[in-house]
Amino acid sequence: MAPDSAYFNSWSEAYRRPFGAIQIGKSIFMAIDVRFAHVLRVELAIQKDGSGFEYVEMFQDGEDPIKYRIKYVTEGASGLYFYHFRITCQTDSGTRLYYYGKQADHCGGAGQLLDDPGAVSQYQLTCYAYSDPAPEWYTHGIIYHIFIDRFNNGNAFHRISNPKKNSFIYATEDDDPYYIRDSKGHIVRWDFFGGNLKGIIDKLHELHQFGVTILYLSPIFEASSNHRYNTADFTKIDPMIGDRPIFEKLIKKAKRLNIRIILDGVFNHVGADSVYFNRFGTYGNGGAYNDTRSAYYNWFTFHHYPDSYDSWWAVDDLPTVKKDLPAYRHFIFDSDQSIVSQWTEAGIGGWRLDVADELPDDFIAGIRRAVDRHSNGNDRKVLIGEVWEDASNKIAYGKRRHYLEGGMLHGAMNYPVRHLIIDLIEQRISARSAARQLLTLKSNYPPEAFNAAMNNIGSHDTERILTVFNGNEEKLKLAIWLLMTLPGVPCIYYGDEAGLTGGKDPENRRFYPWGRENQRIKQIYYQAAQARRHDLNLQSGDFLPFSIGDLFGFVRFRSQEYWTMLLLNPTSIEQPVHWDERFDETGGSRLLEAMRLFLPVGLSLAPCSLRVICNNS
Amino acid sequence: MAPDSAYFNSWSEAYRRPFGAIQIGKSIFMAIDVRFAHVLRVELAIQKDGSGFEYVEMFQDGEDPIKYRIKYVTEGASGLYFYHFRITCQTDSGTRLYYYGKQADHCGGAGQLLDDPGAVSQYQLTCYAYSDPAPEWYTHGIIYHIFIDRFNNGNAFHRISNPKKNSFIYATEDDDPYYIRDSKGHIVRWDFFGGNLKGIIDKLHELHQFGVTILYLSPIFEASSNHRYNTADFTKIDPMIGDRPIFEKLIKKAKRLNIRIILDGVFNHVGADSVYFNRFGTYGNGGAYNDTRSAYYNWFTFHHYPDSYDSWWAVDDLPTVKKDLPAYRHFIFDSDQSIVSQWTEAGIGGWRLDVADELPDDFIAGIRRAVDRHSNGNDRKVLIGEVWEDASNKIAYGKRRHYLEGGMLHGAMNYPVRHLIIDLIEQRISARSAARQLLTLKSNYPPEAFNAAMNNIGSHDTERILTVFNGNEEKLKLAIWLLMTLPGVPCIYYGDEAGLTGGKDPENRRFYPWGRENQRIKQIYYQAAQARRHDLNLQSGDFLPFSIGDLFGFVRFRSQEYWTMLLLNPTSIEQPVHWDERFDETGGSRLLEAMRLFLPVGLSLAPCSLRVICNNS
Repeated sequence: MAPDSAYFNSWSEAYRRPFGAIQIGKSIFMAIDVRFAHVLRVELAIQKDGSGFEYVEMFQDGEDPIKYRIKYVTEGASGLYFYHFRITCQTDSGTRLYYYGKQADHCGGAGQLLDDPGAVSQYQLTCYAYSDPAPEWYTHGIIYHIFIDRFNNGNAFHRISNPKKNSFIYATEDDDPYYIRDSKGHIVRWDFFGGNLKGIIDKLHELHQFGVTILYLSPIFEASSNHRYNTADFTKIDPMIGDRPIFEKLIKKAKRLNIRIILDGVFNHVGADSVYFNRFGTYGNGGAYNDTRSAYYNWFTFHHYPDSYDSWWAVDDLPTVKKDLPAYRHFIFDSDQSIVSQWTEAGIGGWRLDVADELPDDFIAGIRRAVDRHSNGNDRKVLIGEVWEDASNKIAYGKRRHYLEGGMLHGAMNYPVRHLIIDLIEQRISARSAARQLLTLKSNYPPEAFNAAMNNIGSHDTERILTVFNGNEEKLKLAIWLLMTLPGVPCIYYGDEAGLTGGKDPENRRFYPWGRENQRIKQIYYQAAQARRHDLNLQSGDFLPFSIGDLFGFVRFRSQEYWTMLLLNPTSIEQPVHWDERFDETGGSRLLEAMRLFLPVGLSLAPCSLRVICNNS
Repeated sequence: MAPDSAYFNSWSEAYRRPFGAIQIGKSIFMAIDVRFAHVLRVELAIQKDGSGFEYVEMFQDGEDPIKYRIKYVTEGASGLYFYHFRITCQTDSGTRLYYYGKQADHCGGAGQLLDDPGAVSQYQLTCYAYSDPAPEWYTHGIIYHIFIDRFNNGNAFHRISNPKKNSFIYATEDDDPYYIRDSKGHIVRWDFFGGNLKGIIDKLHELHQFGVTILYLSPIFEASSNHRYNTADFTKIDPMIGDRPIFEKLIKKAKRLNIRIILDGVFNHVGADSVYFNRFGTYGNGGAYNDTRSAYYNWFTFHHYPDSYDSWWAVDDLPTVKKDLPAYRHFIFDSDQSIVSQWTEAGIGGWRLDVADELPDDFIAGIRRAVDRHSNGNDRKVLIGEVWEDASNKIAYGKRRHYLEGGMLHGAMNYPVRHLIIDLIEQRISARSAARQLLTLKSNYPPEAFNAAMNNIGSHDTERILTVFNGNEEKLKLAIWLLMTLPGVPCIYYGDEAGLTGGKDPENRRFYPWGRENQRIKQIYYQAAQARRHDLNLQSGDFLPFSIGDLFGFVRFRSQEYWTMLLLNPTSIEQPVHWDERFDETGGSRLLEAMRLFLPVGLSLAPCSLRVICNNS
C-alpha cells in the first residue's frame, strides 16, 4: 500500500474543522480520503487523555477518492484528545489494518499511512473549558523584560541603596558578571551592579518612545541574591532596589505613559535566607529552620530536621514550600490580604509565574482568581506562566498540565518559538519545517492562548540572541522581525536592543551599556517595534505560515483586505519569489492565492533578508 | 667534670667587653673562669663567618677560679665571628679536650661545658663596618602601618575613584574580606574596599593626636590588586588611591603635623599585569611577555618564552626581576631619575623594602645610596627591610646577609620580638627565657640597628594580635605596653588599636571600623603611646631585661638617674615582687641593685598585669 493512498490534514478545513483547539462539548468534523480498494471500515481512533481508545466508524462520502467523514462531539472535562485513523481492508486471507497518524516530525497537518500500530504518532485535539482571552493591552503590547539589578541605577552618582552585608558590588558597570563560588562551587557572596526601581523610572520615557508598553520585572521582593528568586519577604520591596512608595511611583509614572508592570511571582520556593525559613538567623530566632513551633514550620518538608529538606532542583538555598497547604495558599492568594492580592491591588498589570510547572493546577487557578478579583473591564489583569515547552500538552512530574484551558494562565512563555526562530535563521530547519512547527503550535494552543504567548528570542535563562548568532547582525535583524511579527506578544530582553552579548547565566546578565549602545541594532528593534505598534494585523491578525522553497513566509490577516505578509530568506544566496511554487500546509488558502496582485513584480530577496508587505485596502 | 667547672657570660662586662656587636677592626676582651686542675691550655676558638677556626691561646690571670683572658682584634670585612672556648687538660693517659659554648637554648649569656665538639653551640660576635644610626625622628617615633585599601575612603559618599574594570567592591565597609578564586584556587577578581590617600589625609589630625609620628604605607604605585605588591607602574600613583598632587598634599599636610611617610618599596618582582611584563595586554603591545624586543625583555628570566618564567615563590602573577641587571638598577636606584630617587625627592621619610631577603646586598646598598643622596642633617631618610628572623645572622638562599652592618638597612622588621611578646604573655616561654632571647637579639644586632628595629605585634602578614589572644583584652594590654616600651620603633598595624580581629590574610585586612572602634582598646594604645612619646628613656634608653621568678621585667635607662622600669606578670595569679630574687642574665648590674629604693614597699602584681615605674630624678 503506497503511503499516499490515504490523506488527512489536520490543518485543512476540508479535513478537520474548526481549526485547532475547541471548547469542550463542541463537535468537530473530520474527514479522510482513502484511495484504495477493499476497504471494509474506516474508524476514528480517539482517546481522551489518560483514557482508552474509542473507535468511531466513519461514514463514506463520495468516491475517487472515497472520503470518510465523522462529526465527533467532545465531552467531559477540558483537556486533550489524541487521535488517529484505522482502516480495515479485506484481503484474500482475511482482514488487514492500516493506521494513519502524524508524520515522523510529530507536527500536525498531512500525515502518513502505516501498518505498524506502535509507530503511529497521534494527532492532538486540545479542548479548553472556555475562551479565556488575555487583556487587549497585553496582546497588543510590547514587553520589555528587566533584570532589575542589571538595568539602571537611578541614584545620584550611582550610589547603592542599602547594600547587603558581605556582598560585592561590581567596580564598573561594564564589568563581566561573575559568580563568586567557594572551592565546592557554592555561591558564597552575591554580586550586584545596583540597578533599582528609580533607575527604571528614569528610563520610562525612553522605553515608551521605543515602543514598550509593558515592563516585565524580575522579582522585586526582599532577597539576598541579585536575581531575587530566593524570596526573603514577600511583603517588602527589596531595600536595595527601593521601597513601597518608589514602587507606587513607578506604577503611577508608567501608567501615565500607558505602560503596565508585570511582576515575577515566585511561589514555588522561598530563600533559605528568609523570614520563613531563616536558615542563617538573619531574621531573628524564628523561621522553620530554627523553630519547629514557627508558624512557617509546616510550610516545608523536612526529611531530617533541620538540614535535610525539599528544595527546588535540590538547591539548598531554595527550600520548596508545600503548595497544597491551606495556610500557604491563604498567605499567597486566598485572602484579601494575600500576597497576590495586595501587590495586584497596588496597580500592577499582572504576574508572570515562575516555574509554573511546579505549581499545581488548582494553585495556579487560585492565583488567577485572586488576580481576577482586581480585574475589571477597564483594567484587566494578566497571568502568564514560565513554561519551556509546548504548554498545551506539557507533562510535568508525571501530570498533564492544563495551564491554558481556561481559568489559569492567559498565556505561557514561548521558548519553542525562540528555538524555531534560531533554527530557521541558522538553517538548521527548513522553511517548510518552520511553517509546520508554527502551525502545530497554533493548532495545539487555544487561540486566545496562542495570541497571548509571551514570545522571546532570549531571556535571563538563555544565551543572548546576538551571541547565538556569533555577532551576526544580519541574522539578528531577521530574529528581531520574527519576534515582532509572529503571533504572541513580543518580549525584549533588556539590553538585547543595545547589542549586549553573553552566553548563559551569568554572561547574559551584563549591565545595560548606557551610552555605549549599538545604535544599528537599536534602530532595527525600534523599526520592528514601530511596525508592530502601528499595524493591527501584527497585533491580532490570524496567522498563516507557508514556504516557497528555501523562503519562509507568513501572513497575519484580519480579513482579505487587512493583512501583512512577511517573507524571509535565511539562505546566503539571493532568492527570487516564485509565488506559484509556495507550499501552504493548510492545503491551499484562497487568501494566499489572491495576494499575487499585491506582490511586486520580479520580487527577489537578498541573502539573509526579509520583506514585509502590508495591505490595508 | 661538672658543667659549672667553667664559666663565661657573653653578656657580662667581666667576661666580654664591649657588650654586643663591635665595629670591625676593634678589639674585644674575653675572659673565662676555669675551676679545675691539670689545665694545660685554654684557647679562644674563633672563626670568621665562612672561614676555618683560629685557636688563640688565652692568658692565665688570677687563681681560684683561674681566669683566662685574651684581647682579640677583629679584622677584614664586616660580618660575623663565631666562637667558643677549648680547654686542654692533662690526664693520666695524655690530654683531654673540653669545649665551652652556648646553652642548649642557643641564647648567649652564660654557657655550658661539653666534651663533645659536635654539640658545641657557638657564640656570635657581630662586626659592623661602621655605626649607621637611623634618623632620630625614626628611632624616637611611633609608626602606624596603613594597608591603604582598608583604611579610609576620603571621597564624598565613599565613592570609589577610578575603579578597576572587572574587580569587586565590598558592599559595606564592615564586610569580611574574601579572596575571589576560581575552581583552581587562582584569584580571578580583586576585591576592594576603596581606601585612598585622601582618606589618610582626612585622618592625619586624629593620628597625630593619637601619638603617631610615622606612617608606613602599603604600596602606592599602580597595580591591579588591592595590596598593590604586584606593581604595574612604578612611576604612577595607583589612580584608585589618588595621584601625584594628592600624594604631595599628603606629604605636606603630614609634615605640618611632624608626621613622616615611609613607602613600601617592592623591587624584587613586578606584576604580571604591568607596563614591564604586560601578560594580559593591559598596557598595549609592549612588555616582556609580548615582545622579545621590549626594553623590559631582559629584566626577566624566561625558561620557556613567554609562559614559563622566574617568579616570586612560583606565583605566576609576580615575575621576578633580575636584580643584577645594570638596566634595572639604573631604573630603580642608579640615576637621578630612578624610582627611588624621584619618590624620595617628593619628600617621603624613607622606605621599607619588601622581601629584603630576595635583594642582593649590593642592590640594597645601591638603594641606600640613592636614599642618602636626598638625606641631610635636617631631613634624614630611613631604610628598613622586611626580614622575618634575627636579621643579624640571616642566611637567605645560601648566603649570609649583611643588612645591618652599615650602608644598607638602618633596621629590619622585628618579627622575633612579636613572637617573644606573644610567647611570654601566653606563658609558652618563661620570663627568664624572654629576658635571654631579648639579650641575644640585643647582643647580636649592632646597637643602632637594635634601636631601629621596626617592632610589631601584628601586620598584614600575620594574625591580628587580638585574635592571637582569643579576644582577651588583658593579654592585649600587656602586648601593647611591651610593643611601646621595648627597644626598637613600635609599629601599630592599622585597626589593631580599634579592636579589629582576624586570622591570617585576608581576615587581617578588614576595613577600619570607623565609628565602631573598641574604645577600651584604643585608650590602652593611646596611654602606652603617650607614655613612650613623653619618656626619652623608652625612646632611646639602654636596655636591661631580667626576671623575678615568673615575673618579667626590664629597665630602659639613659643613666643611673634616668630610667624607666617595666614589670610584667604574665601568670594568672598575683605575684609579689621579691626584688632580691631577681635574675639578671648580665651577671648582676649595679643599676638594678640601686633601684630597690624606688620600688613601692610590698609591691605586688595582679594576675596578667604590668607596672611601669619611671624615674627621672
